[in-house]
Amino acid sequence: MPELAQPIVRLIDEFAKLPGIGRKSAERLAYYVLRVKTEEALALSDAIRAVKLNVHQCKNCYNLSEEDYCPICQDKSRNERQICVVEQPQDLIALEKTGVYHGLYHVLQGRLSPLDKTGPEDLTIAPLIQRVERLIKQSSPNDPEVELIMATNPTVEGDATAGHIVNLLNGKKVKISRLARGIALGAMVEFTNREVLSDAFNERRIVE
Amino acid sequence: MPELAQPIVRLIDEFAKLPGIGRKSAERLAYYVLRVKTEEALALSDAIRAVKLNVHQCKNCYNLSEEDYCPICQDKSRNERQICVVEQPQDLIALEKTGVYHGLYHVLQGRLSPLDKTGPEDLTIAPLIQRVERLIKQSSPNDPEVELIMATNPTVEGDATAGHIVNLLNGKKVKISRLARGIALGAMVEFTNREVLSDAFNERRIVE
Repeated sequence: MPELAQPIVRLIDEFAKLPGIGRKSAERLAYYVLRVKTEEALALSDAIRAVKLNVHQCKNCYNLSEEDYCPICQDKSRNERQICVVEQPQDLIALEKTGVYHGLYHVLQGRLSPLDKTGPEDLTIAPLIQRVERLIKQSSPNDPEVELIMATNPTVEGDATAGHIVNLLNGKKVKISRLARGIALGAMVEFTNREVLSDAFNERRIVE
Repeated sequence: MPELAQPIVRLIDEFAKLPGIGRKSAERLAYYVLRVKTEEALALSDAIRAVKLNVHQCKNCYNLSEEDYCPICQDKSRNERQICVVEQPQDLIALEKTGVYHGLYHVLQGRLSPLDKTGPEDLTIAPLIQRVERLIKQSSPNDPEVELIMATNPTVEGDATAGHIVNLLNGKKVKISRLARGIALGAMVEFTNREVLSDAFNERRIVE
């Protein structure tokens, strides 16, 4: 039986490595690439190359950036005494879309996960602690306190990651908060699961 | 709100053009590319480029090939007086996997589809007719008859495409067959749908 041409096999293999793309989908994608105009296929090829060659981590907050420092860290109008800690760049985007936050960020590049063998040294926790310590040191007496806002995912691993950072900052002159947790706006109590409801119950607020 | 870095937006746009990849999947793929090692990402980029630059259509049967003529057309041991007509290269691969056929192929590059505005001129029907006429002309008197085996999909469009080709060859000295149609091996009559069952009924064979 004659084999598929080698470049096609290679392309199918490469597509199949992508998350959520099985063998059959990879074949479909490869045949699609074969079918479309050469310019269209090369546009995808070039976009992949460009993103790897031109996008780096911001030297301050580890957000993705085309320059040494990301647009948020470069924006002098933002409050640099507030640092919102997120797991990944996508979380930062989601928070920015709300438009309610005007401080800076710190992207951990993941979360602590013993099962995936991700320890503190695999995340950007050390640079975060240094950032906070530097901020505290540079404070003048009438500056507001430095605030760290934990926005890791409300999961066991996200909570553990936030807890680890809180421990490291124990005794330091820094205010630490985390995103409120409860029933989501627009949700139905009837259909909200037990864990979310107990969270909402435990975090209930006095109506004044 | 600061925008996503331009190369990332471009990559998401390109991924989103792929079939079956929605906006959200495209974002996930783009962040995956950002996360993996540069070599891995460039391997995908290069594989796309290589397939477009090195894989062409066979000049005889329009199968995909790295050379002017595909391995099947180059194989002198195959019966060149049998031509199996398929819609796309994937169909050829599926048929080759069975190992029962030892003739050549002709890849139509699609099927007649008025809804998608695909007419006979968009397919490789004209070169197929020429191939058949050339074969008939070159025949010596004791050669077996040229055979065209229609293996288009058993759908309205596939059948129409095969019918169109059969009409064009009307009166020519060529035997035309098509793949048998009926209940699939291993299927249950109880759960086979009406159309398939009537097909199987109409095409019933005398047991000798």
